[in-house]
Amino acid sequence: MPHHGNISFTPGATGLSLEPSPVTNEISKDKNVHVKPTARKFDHRFSAEGLSLAPTPLKDTVKTLDFAKMIPLGNGRPASEMLPWEELTMRVAKRDTGLMSCVKGESSFDLAVALDYGCSGGSTKLVDFLTEHVESIHHPPYSDWQTCLSIGSTSAIERALRLFCNRGDWILVEEYTYSGLITAGKTLGINMLAIEMDDGGLNANDLDAKLSAWGPEKGKKPFVLYTVPSGQNPTGKTQSVQRKRLIYEVAEKHDLYIVEDDPYYFLQHGNFSKGTSNLTAKEYQTHLPATYLSLDLSGRVLRLDSASKILAPGLRLGWVTGCAQVIGKFIEQADMSTLAASGPSQVMVHKLLCETWGHGGFMNWLFDLSLQYRKRRDTMSAACAKYLPSVCHWTLPAVGMFLWIKVDHTQLSSRSSPLALEEKICEELEGKGLMVGRGSWFWVGSESMNELCFRLTFAAAPQERLEQAIRILAEQILLYT
Amino acid sequence: MPHHGNISFTPGATGLSLEPSPVTNEISKDKNVHVKPTARKFDHRFSAEGLSLAPTPLKDTVKTLDFAKMIPLGNGRPASEMLPWEELTMRVAKRDTGLMSCVKGESSFDLAVALDYGCSGGSTKLVDFLTEHVESIHHPPYSDWQTCLSIGSTSAIERALRLFCNRGDWILVEEYTYSGLITAGKTLGINMLAIEMDDGGLNANDLDAKLSAWGPEKGKKPFVLYTVPSGQNPTGKTQSVQRKRLIYEVAEKHDLYIVEDDPYYFLQHGNFSKGTSNLTAKEYQTHLPATYLSLDLSGRVLRLDSASKILAPGLRLGWVTGCAQVIGKFIEQADMSTLAASGPSQVMVHKLLCETWGHGGFMNWLFDLSLQYRKRRDTMSAACAKYLPSVCHWTLPAVGMFLWIKVDHTQLSSRSSPLALEEKICEELEGKGLMVGRGSWFWVGSESMNELCFRLTFAAAPQERLEQAIRILAEQILLYT
Repeated sequence: MPHHGNISFTPGATGLSLEPSPVTNEISKDKNVHVKPTARKFDHRFSAEGLSLAPTPLKDTVKTLDFAKMIPLGNGRPASEMLPWEELTMRVAKRDTGLMSCVKGESSFDLAVALDYGCSGGSTKLVDFLTEHVESIHHPPYSDWQTCLSIGSTSAIERALRLFCNRGDWILVEEYTYSGLITAGKTLGINMLAIEMDDGGLNANDLDAKLSAWGPEKGKKPFVLYTVPSGQNPTGKTQSVQRKRLIYEVAEKHDLYIVEDDPYYFLQHGNFSKGTSNLTAKEYQTHLPATYLSLDLSGRVLRLDSASKILAPGLRLGWVTGCAQVIGKFIEQADMSTLAASGPSQVMVHKLLCETWGHGGFMNWLFDLSLQYRKRRDTMSAACAKYLPSVCHWTLPAVGMFLWIKVDHTQLSSRSSPLALEEKICEELEGKGLMVGRGSWFWVGSESMNELCFRLTFAAAPQERLEQAIRILAEQILLYT
Repeated sequence: MPHHGNISFTPGATGLSLEPSPVTNEISKDKNVHVKPTARKFDHRFSAEGLSLAPTPLKDTVKTLDFAKMIPLGNGRPASEMLPWEELTMRVAKRDTGLMSCVKGESSFDLAVALDYGCSGGSTKLVDFLTEHVESIHHPPYSDWQTCLSIGSTSAIERALRLFCNRGDWILVEEYTYSGLITAGKTLGINMLAIEMDDGGLNANDLDAKLSAWGPEKGKKPFVLYTVPSGQNPTGKTQSVQRKRLIYEVAEKHDLYIVEDDPYYFLQHGNFSKGTSNLTAKEYQTHLPATYLSLDLSGRVLRLDSASKILAPGLRLGWVTGCAQVIGKFIEQADMSTLAASGPSQVMVHKLLCETWGHGGFMNWLFDLSLQYRKRRDTMSAACAKYLPSVCHWTLPAVGMFLWIKVDHTQLSSRSSPLALEEKICEELEGKGLMVGRGSWFWVGSESMNELCFRLTFAAAPQERLEQAIRILAEQILLYT
C-alpha cells in the first residue's frame, strides 16, 4: 500500500472557508453567563414549517470536520483561484485609519472566505464581535442566548412569522405598524390584531385586555407580539423602560413571544444631549435605555438589529438575538433558502467594525450619527412649528427618523373620508415635488382608518431642504382649511 | 403663498436610488420579441401563499414617481452622507483592465445606489445586462419573459416551491437530487416523487409513465418538475438537447412547470474542445447546447442561473428567468422578505461584467473557466482509471464539477447495507483527511437506497492533490474487496 503522506492546506490554497463550525459565541459573552437561568422551550409553539426544520445531514457532517486538514472532494465549492476578484479595498470618510484592504490569504476572514460559501448564521469573527456588542449593550439576563446574522430585518420578520405561525393564526401588532410586516402577514395568511397606542407607544393595558377577552371562538390565542419599541415606524413613538416592563409582564402572563424590531434604537436624540455639548460616546452608551432583550429572563424575546439605519441598507445585513432554540431554527431556515448573508457585505462590516473601529469606534460612530439625526429632527420640528396650521398635531420623536403628523380632518373644509383626503393631498404634494409617507400604508386597525396622518422622515432629504419641504406640506394642508 | 422654487437633486445629494422603476427589460430583448407568442397563465396553479402575494401600496406608489425631482420625506432611507463608506475598489486577476473603483455620484449605479435600498428584482443596469445575456444565450421563444436577480439559486428554489406548492403537494425530481432542494421540500412538507435516471439523466419515459399512472387517490397531480439538466448534482449527468425535448413534451402533455436549475451550464468540458487548441470563446458560445428556456414556447420554465460556480458563491447572487407573471410573483416574494440582493455584491458584478468585461469578456471568462474545469476533470478521471478497483464504476462528466462513483457493493466482502457501508467508509476517509460526498445525502427514491455511491468534486481541491485523493479513496475501497 503506497504511503500518501500528510495532508495540510492553507485556506487560500484550498479555497475553503475555515468556518464550518456552528455558531456558539460562548467566549463572547459575560463571564457569569453560566449562573444565569436558561430560556424556556418553545417546541409546542412552532408552526408546521417550524417543526419540520431540521439540521441537514450534509451540513451536519461538515460541522464536525477540521477543514484545514482535509482534501475537499465533498462540497461543490470552487477553489479560490477560480474566482475573479483578487482584492477589495474600502475607504471610509470618517474616523478612517487608512484604506481597508481585503485580499486572499491575509487573515482568517480573508477575501477567499468572503467569496466562498459561508456559515448560514454568519462568519464566526463577525458574529463573535456582534455577540460581544450585544452582551455589552443589552446584558441578556439568561444564559443560552445566541446572536446570528440575518439578511436584513424584513427577512428576519418573515422568518419569525414562518417559524411560529400557520395560515389563519393571529399575531399582535401596534395599530400603525411597519408596512413590511403587513405585507408579509397578508401573504402568509396571518391575521393581525391591532393594539392601541398612546403617546408612550403600545398600550400594555389594551394588550392585556384583548388577550384576556380572547375566546376560543376567535381561533388560536395569539402568541407572537411584533413591536417596534424605539422611534416606532411609522409613529416615531418610543416606549419607556417602564412601558417595556409592563408589556413584558403581559407577555409573561399570557405567554407571548416578543419580536423586538429595533432598527432605530441607536438613533437617540435623547435628553442626554440637551445642553451637553461635551457629551462623550461613553456617556451616550451609558444612557442607552434597557431593551426587551435586557429584560428577558425567559428567553421569549427575538431582538432584531439592522445595519440598514446605522451602516447601510444596501448591505442587506442585520443580526438577531434570542434563545439558542429559536436561533438554531433561524439558521436552519437560512440553510434551506438564502444561506449566508453576502460575503462582500460581511467583510465590509467586519473590516470596519472588527478590524478598524472596534467597539469603542463603533460607539463613536453611533453617537455621531445620533447627533446628526437630532440636528435634522430639530430642523424639521422647528419648521413644523413655524409653518404647519393648527389642525396639525405632532410630538417630538426622541429616537429614530420619523415625525408623525396627525391632521384633525374634522376641522377641514372637505367632507371626504380621511383615506380619500390622504390620496388627494399626497398626489398634489407629489405634483409639487414632495414625497411623504401615507398613514394608510401602516394602518392595521380592525376598523377603517378614521385619521389623516403623514409620516415624514428627516433621514433622506438634504438638511437644507427640510424647511422647504414642510412649507410645501403646510401650504397644501392650508388649502383644505 | 410663498414661492418655493424648483426642486431638483443629484443622487449623491439625496442618498436616493434613481431606480424605483419596475423591471421590464424590453429594450434588452431581441427586436422580434413582439411577434413571439405570450406565455400561458398560471393563476390556477399558485399555492395559497402564491395567490396571496400582491404588490405593496408603498412600493407601488414609489414606482410611478420621478425620484430625482422629489424631496424625499416618504421612505425611511438614510441620506448617503450618513453611510460610512466612501469608496469601494476591486482588483481582478485575469483580463483586468485596471482597478475598478466605485464612489458616490460617479454614475447611475454608483456607491450611493449600492449602499441604499434598491429594487427587489435587482439594479436596473445589472438586470438589463443579464437580460441581454439571457437573450443572446437562450433566445427564449416567447415574448413576455423576464429576468430578475435572486439571492442565489437555493433561495430561488425555495421561492418556486412556496409559490406553487402547498404542504402535502407532490413535486417531481431526479432520484438523486440537490440536497438543498431535499431540505427545502422536507421543511415545506412537500412530497418528492423520484423519477428514474439513466446515463442521459432524467428518464422521460419514466416521467411520463408515473404521471400517466397518477390517480386521484395519491393526491393532487404533481405540477412542478425540478431538474438539474447539466452536470447534474450529484450524478454529473447531462441531458442532451434531444432528451430535453422529450421531457419538455411530457411537460406539455401533463401540464408541468419545469424548474431548470442550471448552475453548471457554462462549465462545459465538451466535445468542442477535443483536439482544438485554438478554440475561441466565440466558438464556445456557439456550441453551448439548447436549454429548457430556449425550448420553452409556453412559458412553463423557470430557469435558475447562479453566480456561485462561475463568479463567486459568497456574492449570494443569481438570476432567474421565466414568464412575467411568475417573475412578478418572485419579486413580490423578495419585497416581503429579503428585498434586493446585497448592493456590494451587485456592484461588484456590475463593475466587472457590465463596465469592464462586457458580454464578450464574460464569455472569455466562462470559456477559460471551462478549460480549467476540463483539466481538473481529466486529472481526476485519469486517477480514477489508474487507481480505482474494478468494483467502481463511473462515467466521464461532460459538464460541471462532479464525478459520480458507483461501487458494486454486492462484490464487496462486507454484508452491511449500502448506507452502513457508506457511513463507515466515509468516516474512515475523513480520518485519513479526505472528504467526499455521500450518495445518501442526495437520495430521494421511494425505497431505501440500495446503491453505494460517492460524489467527488474536482472544483475545490488543489489540482495537484486530486490524484492523491483518488489514491486514498481507492485504497479504502480496496480494503473492502
